[in-house]
Parts: sequence; structure tokens; C-alpha cells
Amino acid sequence: MAAKSEAMDTLVNLAKRRGLVYPSSEIYGGLRASWDYGPLGVELKSNVKRQWWRAMVQEREDIVGLDSSVILAREVWEASGHVKAFVDPLTECQSCHKRFRADHLLEAYEEKHGREPATGLADLACPNCGAKSSFTEPRMFNGLLRTYLGPVQDETGLAFLRPETAQGIFINYMNVQQSARKKVPFGIGQIGKSFRNEITPGNFIFRTREFEQMEMEFFVKPGEDEQWHQYWIDTRMQWYVDLGIAKDNLRLYEHPKDKLSHYSKRTVDIEYRFGFQGTEWGELEGVANRTDYDLKTHSEASGTDLSFFEQENNERYIPYVIEPAAGVDRALLTFMLDAYSEDEAPNAKGKLEKRAVMRLDPRLSPVKAAVLPLSRNSDLSPKARDLAARLRKRWNVEFDDAGAIGRRYRRQDEIGTPFCVTVDFDTLEDDAVTVRERDTMSQERVALDQVETYLVERLPGC
Amino acid sequence: MAAKSEAMDTLVNLAKRRGLVYPSSEIYGGLRASWDYGPLGVELKSNVKRQWWRAMVQEREDIVGLDSSVILAREVWEASGHVKAFVDPLTECQSCHKRFRADHLLEAYEEKHGREPATGLADLACPNCGAKSSFTEPRMFNGLLRTYLGPVQDETGLAFLRPETAQGIFINYMNVQQSARKKVPFGIGQIGKSFRNEITPGNFIFRTREFEQMEMEFFVKPGEDEQWHQYWIDTRMQWYVDLGIAKDNLRLYEHPKDKLSHYSKRTVDIEYRFGFQGTEWGELEGVANRTDYDLKTHSEASGTDLSFFEQENNERYIPYVIEPAAGVDRALLTFMLDAYSEDEAPNAKGKLEKRAVMRLDPRLSPVKAAVLPLSRNSDLSPKARDLAARLRKRWNVEFDDAGAIGRRYRRQDEIGTPFCVTVDFDTLEDDAVTVRERDTMSQERVALDQVETYLVERLPGC
Repeated sequence: MAAKSEAMDTLVNLAKRRGLVYPSSEIYGGLRASWDYGPLGVELKSNVKRQWWRAMVQEREDIVGLDSSVILAREVWEASGHVKAFVDPLTECQSCHKRFRADHLLEAYEEKHGREPATGLADLACPNCGAKSSFTEPRMFNGLLRTYLGPVQDETGLAFLRPETAQGIFINYMNVQQSARKKVPFGIGQIGKSFRNEITPGNFIFRTREFEQMEMEFFVKPGEDEQWHQYWIDTRMQWYVDLGIAKDNLRLYEHPKDKLSHYSKRTVDIEYRFGFQGTEWGELEGVANRTDYDLKTHSEASGTDLSFFEQENNERYIPYVIEPAAGVDRALLTFMLDAYSEDEAPNAKGKLEKRAVMRLDPRLSPVKAAVLPLSRNSDLSPKARDLAARLRKRWNVEFDDAGAIGRRYRRQDEIGTPFCVTVDFDTLEDDAVTVRERDTMSQERVALDQVETYLVERLPGC
Repeated sequence: MAAKSEAMDTLVNLAKRRGLVYPSSEIYGGLRASWDYGPLGVELKSNVKRQWWRAMVQEREDIVGLDSSVILAREVWEASGHVKAFVDPLTECQSCHKRFRADHLLEAYEEKHGREPATGLADLACPNCGAKSSFTEPRMFNGLLRTYLGPVQDETGLAFLRPETAQGIFINYMNVQQSARKKVPFGIGQIGKSFRNEITPGNFIFRTREFEQMEMEFFVKPGEDEQWHQYWIDTRMQWYVDLGIAKDNLRLYEHPKDKLSHYSKRTVDIEYRFGFQGTEWGELEGVANRTDYDLKTHSEASGTDLSFFEQENNERYIPYVIEPAAGVDRALLTFMLDAYSEDEAPNAKGKLEKRAVMRLDPRLSPVKAAVLPLSRNSDLSPKARDLAARLRKRWNVEFDDAGAIGRRYRRQDEIGTPFCVTVDFDTLEDDAVTVRERDTMSQERVALDQVETYLVERLPGC
């Protein structure tokens, strides 16, 4: 765990230096727990989303996509239970006045000691200042962020920023089902920003007030919900494994019955071994059996019948919903953490030196190939530039002519670029280039006019 | 113009029926001027964004991407001038109490009569109820949407939802320039949601409070700004033409000097002939010369020097900024409106009937190919399903076996699907299928194992 925690520091550092993730509003001293994605971060993020969309929507006949608004009618959040039930227990240390989520403090204690504290919060020391018996009685705090539409800032214009994309799916269920002519079982997937007034945001991009979700609501016949739930737990777990996450760093966490959300019959989290201080494992994705709670409450509140008529059996029912809900930012953090490694590579003098390498699945790599003229030279540079321009029609490709070639390889290794293509003086004679692979560092000579084909074969799904 | 206005009604209708765009929160009676994108809409939208990203970021060595937060530090909006200057003149009809933007009323009068009204608002009749001399003196109204972070809803937690993505680029300018090692001239592009408390949202997805932008800030040396400005006006205009918009429906609009935004030296809008009631032309994209206003004010307000040092000339300056700012939703509306057309096609009896067809550039089409078994049959359907599944690895592909084949062709025509692939009884003998092209309706026999190659050749850039 010490190693993991160090890995996180290394990563935050690397992320800023290389333009993956910057602290947001940094020139103004920063906005707490808020982050912006730089040129490489935006590519990595968009690759994560593309892979999710491909697996969860594009390649499936039984799932379609949606893109609903962040701001929905207020009634939606009243019916969904969020206005009343989307609350967390907030406590404050009376000594240092730092605020915490009481449930998080209790969970951390339990993970450390293997049991609940005997007298609850009173047993705990403040993680910030160490004071004992200093916590206030928790009060419930609503996590919805408010805004006001229209010219006057009063209750008539009150609206909420969505805390989950799921409700946008439920209220469009009927329109989607009819226009896409889908029959149960079928699903609706959506990627988009959500906002929560988190009491304790933190741990880099793990918990932020503004974040992006990849959610899919799968509508099934009541009675078939449990087996579909299991299907989606397995399928989602496999998605991370297929994209390169080590199995040992993943586990399932079954929510205890008494701690389930108000809409859930059973929820299983896919957890990753983030190695945060105090909590080694963290939620990567939640897979919930939301029952018919949402469609039923929206049917009742809106007066629109959201039941499904099954022609084959002449049967009408409100579908149950299985929801795999993943966080884009958490997935991105997981892919980076799991891919980051250090090994050794020979330097210019043939001596072994430490090498940082991000062993990302090429489908996720922000840069698919880097084109490097061996030196900054009026014959090599134009040839390399031309090649880079051609490859850019298909992928995100970098051109780099600054510094020693070994140093440029290292720069690409640490951002996970699968291939470096070097244009050298032989190229002027043989019209060929050297292609170097990231993980093995093996090199191969490839004809200049075959580079694209060579890479297409080695970058499937990119 | 009457025809255009009808085309808009037809389109809104088609959009809902086919799952392109639904009224948001419809089961709750709707949220005014708010729209959700359905299964086909989300594909079309993502294709528009992908084409912009490809042309503006991926294929260019001099532009990189960014994805900054919606909620930035409050100081950002104070420095940018938005807290003070992001205001519109609001007026109310004292007879029907409907609210309007005074500047829009005056512009509409001017467009109709070719001159300004002699005594301003007093001359105008209310477009809603017809009352004369009924408008209140305009008062300035700030378009920023507010929210409150943290447990107490007071000024300490006050934050704004961004009304433009541009400021996220300016405050990250230094981090991006350094981590991506870019030299002026270079640009930073970004796609994302923005929010404005519009007084008069409307005209379908043309003006909404929540919308998506595609903005690029291009940093240039002072003195070179005017020629770069012209370059970007031309380049952006060409982007729409390349993606199929009729030149006659596009024009440039030069903002009068006295009506420029507080940061602008010159702004030229690319306008499209939307044919809205009252205003035929509408802004599709604005291309502004923002001068050094933004980097200068952020330098001063934050105390961070955002100047650029040009090594070649040993010169330090604050770059000027050229900004092509496009709306995703407006672009999508434009592509649909311009592509929608009606012609004739033979029905099952060989008689010509009206055909609705969306002549979208295939790069934008939500569905790239539809696979249709000639009839619902236990030999044809599995073959067709297999083919659809294979093609889905690469594109968004529909499988449809419901109804007469002619009707299914019509369904694909009206959503702009470039190719229909029909599996018929001959397929069982010759292992070939019929591929039908959308615009010419010509048909060609293609070997089953050659369909993918056939389509790859005909769908470049998809």
C-alpha cells in the first residue's frame, strides 16, 4: 500500500507535467478538488468513453444510446426521491472545524479494525487534527446542486443539476422504446456530466463535485431481474479485464441489505485497489438492481403509464431495471494507475537506466504513434512531418524533434504511446523507417509506404 | 421562407418520431425550450463533434485539445468581465406580461424595414399580443446561471455555470502551452456544455439554456491577428460547405463596430438561412478577434504572467486570440434542415410516391448501413443478423425486419442512412446481397464476404 500511495503521487505529478490532468483554476489558487483535462487527458478520456460506447451500445442490438439534459424538470427529482432521500450524514470536528461524512469515517474504522466502533462516532479520532470525541451529531445534508432559471432568483425558477444521468433515461423510456421500436429486454446507455455537492471531495479525480458518468439502464421482465443482474456484474467486470486491468486489483463488494439505496434490491460494486490513504479499495462501478422503483414512481407522479405490453404472452408489466453505472474519471484514473510501471532501458551509452512506462491498452493510449526525425535536419524533418500528417488522418499522432532520440522515446513511454516511428538518415536511401514497440522496445524496419498498414494491423479497434 | 418554416415543423416532428430529438421532461409536461437527444440524435451529435474535432484538433499539428470544468473559480468570471458585462436588455409587454430581449425586437424590426425604428421600442407592437407602446424600459439582466457549493447556500459558496467554454481555455493557457510545448501561433480546442439564463429561448434547439459548444482559441502574435482572423473565417465557412451545406444558405455577417462584445476588435458570424418566423438568417458560428483582452485581464487578476516569449526574436508579448465558436446543437439543426428533402420513388406497384430523404454527408449519418432480410424468415434473418453484428464492430448499424421492404427503405431514407443491405432468397444460393444507395436508389449485387470492404471504400472518414 505504501508503494501504491507513492504511485498516486507520481501519477498526479506526471499528469500535470504531461498535460493529462491539471488542477482546475490553478492560476487563481485552484478550486478545491476540481480538475481539468489537458491535451493528452482529453484524448485518454475520449478513448475510455469510446470503448464503453462501443461495447455497451454500438456493438449490441439490444442497447441504444441517449443524451438527455443536465437540467430536467424539478418534478423529476421530486418523484425520483432525490429531493428527499439524496442525503449524506455530515459531521464536523469541533476542534479543527473540518467537515466529514460520518458514514465514511465509520467505514474507514471498520476496514481498519474489522468491526464497527462500539459507540459510533464518539470512538473516533479526527483524521485531520487527531482530537477525540470531537464530532458533532451528524445532520443530513442534501447533495443536489441548485440553480435558478428565469429572471428572478426564487422558488418558481428553482432547478437542480442532475446527480446521475439515470433519471434522464427513465423519463425518456417511453419515447425511446417507441421510436427505436425495442422490446424488453433492452437497454438505454448514456454518457454525460453529473454534479453532486460532495462534502468531502478528494483523492485526485476519484471524488469531485463535477464528474462524468457512463450509465446504462437495462429493462427486463420482473422475475428475470436477478439473472440479468448477475450477467451485467460479470460483463462489466470483464470489460475492465479486457482493457488490461490486473484481476488481482479488482474485486466485488456486495452492499449490505441495510445500507442499500432507497431504490435498490441488490447492489454490487466493482472495486479497484486504488491504495488511498485509509481506504485501500474504492468503488469503480456500481451494478444495481433498481427494481421497478423508478418507472413506477415516474408513472404515478407524471400520470403517464410506463408499463410494457408483452405481445407474445399478452402480459403487461412495469419492467425491472439493472443499472451498471461507471464513472469516466474513476475509470481513467484506474487505467492510468494500473498501467503505470517502471522498468529499465539502456541509455545512449548502453547503460541500464530507470524507465517509466504506461502500459495502456493501445485502444486507450492518448497518442497512437509518435513520428521522430532522428535529428532536427532539413532532409529528415519534412519527411517525418509528411508521415505524421498522413497518419493524423486516422489517429492522434505526435511529431517530436526536440532532444536526443532516447529521451524522446522515454517521453512517449511514460504517456503510453504504443509505437514510435523514427525517420533516420538511412530513410533517405531506403525509403524505410524504424518502428519501435513500447513494451518490448523491439525495433523493426518498415517501408515508408507501409507504415499505415503496419500500424492498422497492430492497432485493432483504435 | 414559408417553405422553410414548414420544413422546420416537419423536422421537429420527424425528430421526435424517429428518436433524433425529444422535448425534454415531456412526461412532466416539458421544460420550456429544453430538448433531449434520442438514439439517432446522440449518434448524429457525436458525428458532428467528431468531424469538428478531426478537422480542428486531430489533423492539425498546431492545435491541441482540452476538457475543462463547467464550474470554475468565481474569480475567473469576475476577471473575464462576465459578472459585470454578460448582460442582455430585458423588456416586458405590460399588456400580456411576456418578456423579450429588447435588442432582438429592434433587430427584427430593422431586418423587416431596413432601418431602425425612429423612437426605439415605443414604435414596436408586441409580437405576442399585438399591443402597442406596451414595453417597459429595458433593464439589464445577467445571463450567468448560479449555483452554491458547500453545505451552506450563501455568498461564500457562490459559483457560476460557464456561459462559454473559452474561459476554461484561457486559464489553462500556460499549463497547456508548457506541457504540450507549443509555440505561438497555436490553438486549443474544446467541446462541452455551456449554460446561459436566456430570456427568450426557443426555435427548437436553436436557442436553449443548456447547449453544447465547439470552441477553439487560436493564439497569435499581435499584428498577425487580422490575417489569422480572415484565415479562420474562411476555414470555418469551408468546413460547413465540405460537410454538404448549400453555399446559398450560408452568409457572413459583420458585427457593427458599436455592437461588438466588450472583448472584441472584430467579429464575423457565419449565418445560416434557418427561415425562422421573423428572422430568416440566424447565427451558426461566431468568429471573433478577442485581441489580448482575456489573457491580459487574467494576467492582471491572477498575478500570473501569461505572456509568451518568442526566442527567435527575443521578444515578449501577450498573444492575441482568434476564436471560432460554434454551437453543436445549431450545427446539428443546420445539417438536418439542409439535408432534408423530398423527391419521388416507386412504390411496390411501381407507381411514383413521395419520398422523404435526409441527404446527410455519410460522415454525419447516424446509421451507416441497415441490414434488412427481405422477409422475416428463419433462413434469412440469422444471415442478416450475423452480417449486422459483423458490421457493428465498425459502425452504427441497424437491423430491421419489420414490414414491407419498400417501407423499410423509406424509414432509412428519412434518417439519412447511406446504404441498405438486403438479404434475400438468392442470398441462400449465391452468398451475395443487394446494396442500395440512398440518393440514387441504385442497387448493386455484392458478395456477402465483400460487404465490409465495399462499404469501407464508400464511407471514407466514417
